[in-house]
Amino acid sequence: MSSSTTKAAATLAAFAATFSPFISASGEGASVLSASESNPIKLGWMQGFPVPDDKLIMQPESDFFSFPKMRWTVCHIRELMPTKEVSRGIGAPVPMTYALDSAIDEVKFKPLGSEKTMSWKDSLSANYTDGMLILHKGKIVYETYSGCLNDMGKHAAMSMTKSLTGLLAEILVVEGKLDPNAKVETIVPELKGSAFASATVRQVMDMTTSLKYSENYADPNADIWVYSKAASPLPKAKDYDGPNGYFEYLQTVKKDSISHGEAFGYKTVNSDTLGWIISKVTGKDMATLLSERIWLKMGAEQDGYMTVDAKGVPFAGGGLSAGLRDLGRIGLLMLNGGEINGQQLFPKKVVTNIQAGGDKKAFEKAGYKTLEGGSYRSMWWVMHNDHGAFAARGVHGQTIYVDPTAEMVIIRFSSFPSASNSKIDPTSLPAYQAVASYLMKK
Amino acid sequence: MSSSTTKAAATLAAFAATFSPFISASGEGASVLSASESNPIKLGWMQGFPVPDDKLIMQPESDFFSFPKMRWTVCHIRELMPTKEVSRGIGAPVPMTYALDSAIDEVKFKPLGSEKTMSWKDSLSANYTDGMLILHKGKIVYETYSGCLNDMGKHAAMSMTKSLTGLLAEILVVEGKLDPNAKVETIVPELKGSAFASATVRQVMDMTTSLKYSENYADPNADIWVYSKAASPLPKAKDYDGPNGYFEYLQTVKKDSISHGEAFGYKTVNSDTLGWIISKVTGKDMATLLSERIWLKMGAEQDGYMTVDAKGVPFAGGGLSAGLRDLGRIGLLMLNGGEINGQQLFPKKVVTNIQAGGDKKAFEKAGYKTLEGGSYRSMWWVMHNDHGAFAARGVHGQTIYVDPTAEMVIIRFSSFPSASNSKIDPTSLPAYQAVASYLMKK
Repeated sequence: MSSSTTKAAATLAAFAATFSPFISASGEGASVLSASESNPIKLGWMQGFPVPDDKLIMQPESDFFSFPKMRWTVCHIRELMPTKEVSRGIGAPVPMTYALDSAIDEVKFKPLGSEKTMSWKDSLSANYTDGMLILHKGKIVYETYSGCLNDMGKHAAMSMTKSLTGLLAEILVVEGKLDPNAKVETIVPELKGSAFASATVRQVMDMTTSLKYSENYADPNADIWVYSKAASPLPKAKDYDGPNGYFEYLQTVKKDSISHGEAFGYKTVNSDTLGWIISKVTGKDMATLLSERIWLKMGAEQDGYMTVDAKGVPFAGGGLSAGLRDLGRIGLLMLNGGEINGQQLFPKKVVTNIQAGGDKKAFEKAGYKTLEGGSYRSMWWVMHNDHGAFAARGVHGQTIYVDPTAEMVIIRFSSFPSASNSKIDPTSLPAYQAVASYLMKK
Repeated sequence: MSSSTTKAAATLAAFAATFSPFISASGEGASVLSASESNPIKLGWMQGFPVPDDKLIMQPESDFFSFPKMRWTVCHIRELMPTKEVSRGIGAPVPMTYALDSAIDEVKFKPLGSEKTMSWKDSLSANYTDGMLILHKGKIVYETYSGCLNDMGKHAAMSMTKSLTGLLAEILVVEGKLDPNAKVETIVPELKGSAFASATVRQVMDMTTSLKYSENYADPNADIWVYSKAASPLPKAKDYDGPNGYFEYLQTVKKDSISHGEAFGYKTVNSDTLGWIISKVTGKDMATLLSERIWLKMGAEQDGYMTVDAKGVPFAGGGLSAGLRDLGRIGLLMLNGGEINGQQLFPKKVVTNIQAGGDKKAFEKAGYKTLEGGSYRSMWWVMHNDHGAFAARGVHGQTIYVDPTAEMVIIRFSSFPSASNSKIDPTSLPAYQAVASYLMKK
């Protein structure tokens, strides 16, 4: 291992220990079924005519997103709730090129906090991987599907959706259509009276807003539960008098005591607010804009889709489902400064802005105690390691991991029993570094 | 007009007068807004961030499927309820070829029961047309979009879904995988005790089952309302103790006093039962089978999708949404005996079986008083006119109209205020015949 790789690994160790975006209660310690034991095809979910009662996966969310059912659900979100298409258009897709290297399976790494080495291949089941794609110098060097996913299927991107929302915002900023220093209330007057009113667009993009808002799923009085009820696409109960939909909920979020801009706080409502800002500026909903700016132009082979609330507003904070190779195309766009298939979809500055990272001091203050030097920028996680890596991340192990130094992109879809990426990172982040090192030596 | 065309027109007049499949209460006389006045874009449905309350289209169905909101809804079904993809796969579509002829706009015809002529172009708005595609000798000669639809959009096919269910069944029959003479209970044992048990597969396919089942929407106690509740994908109320889903509902349908096979009765539950039969025989749900047998192989440019019940069962009687040109590909398959793009997707006998029609006597008995010689076969409407025309039809004006003599296929998506096709046929069926005559003379 080179000294730069060692340093990167040390940074990652610290990163992983404290990196716990969007922890959900679902699946926490609920099961010890392995990836193979919990394979949704093998467990027979939703099979048969009729499906036996004990094999049904249905509303409500507490059922369909519980482990191990969740291992089926992540590929079938649209069958459980309304969704809006992210259209690829009607032309021919641009096929990706292949240079498969099966030796990657044998690449060895040490999981964080462990002395025993693990092979890349074994990391896939350790992480309950549903789909894994590795791109090197623009070509697919590794691709595999498991669980509920195949190459014609789509998988929930979860909070990676945030990074696409952030990407669209950063594109608008670089194009001069969105002023990052503008106060949110000047763009979304409906948010006057909420915490967001006095924040700048940049503070929303980097999640340094000061919000009295708890995503502590263990607390039954946490704001996240009111938010979830508001966001549900199901018709509200007759006696329900709370907010209906993302936009109404966001207006109720109050400011915390500290100032905006001081501390990073990973809160999904920032992404929903950013989605609203983007829609106000462009006159398009998030699914339509994501189609027009990215999906229609990147040679995508599948449509994506986004979940919507009861009023049809796409979930900018986590609603996307897409195919594995199409997220690979997103990864290539990020690696190659907005270029794909010989076309520049957005200015290179968009990516350099993101890759430069956010306010490390604000990030540090947020309480990620052992993290040294990470940051969050335009809804991307920036490693600040010597490979210049940055990532989109979603609960249960979703990632787009971009390593510019190794010219490598890794896309993972997975359905890890725990929502917390901090539990998946030990067998993931060092594995990515090991593959990067392997590819750089080729 | 040739004598054969005159005779065809006379048959059509009788046909239209009594041809009222699947009448729904929605929109009946609810409005006199014209097509232009009720244009959903112009009315501003679901526009704005947030959408103003009086422009929202939401659950329940009584709201979203009321006229004029329905003119938006027919292109946005998936945004209101869960759906299952009918995948086109991930390859390149096979583009259709064009030989556009704008003179078709000026083709004149006499609406049934009227002495004044109308132009083809004027018939489009008279019928609240959202999409119109005319194919002649395999090429697109006419194509237009209006209302909520464009060439990248999808539109509800409504009861045309039945014809695709019937097509799949007929394919299985011709392939020897489904015995049309088998009693339904031998294939779906769960239906023992229901009316369907003692019917043959063919009787279900041709809707000559004897069912105590009313689709009279004007009667609040009609079976259709119990069916609708059972079929709804929304979670059931806590005190609901009725059937949940298509399969449970079908088990409750009782036999009427007459024998199976005696009379035609247009009842959607036959299509749902046929879907169940097909799934039992193939081990695939309807959306998956429709993809595997048709969508994946016909060079489709868009995925389709089907609505599902709360247990994920696709709605075989009416759940499909699809693109206009993709239904054009279905029309070509029917015109050309199962062949498209040089590939034979199913045996020619499938089409000749359908085109030969069903039991005219049984059809006559059903009470279509002035209809002379029409029939229903494998869930297609067979005209028995001298052009050998047959059609898929859905409420509010959906059609795939195949005229083998004129080598013409017409696909129409529309959102006519009334569900009843009998009100749309006067300005449609003679128009189709006039265009057929025009094309034959070219």
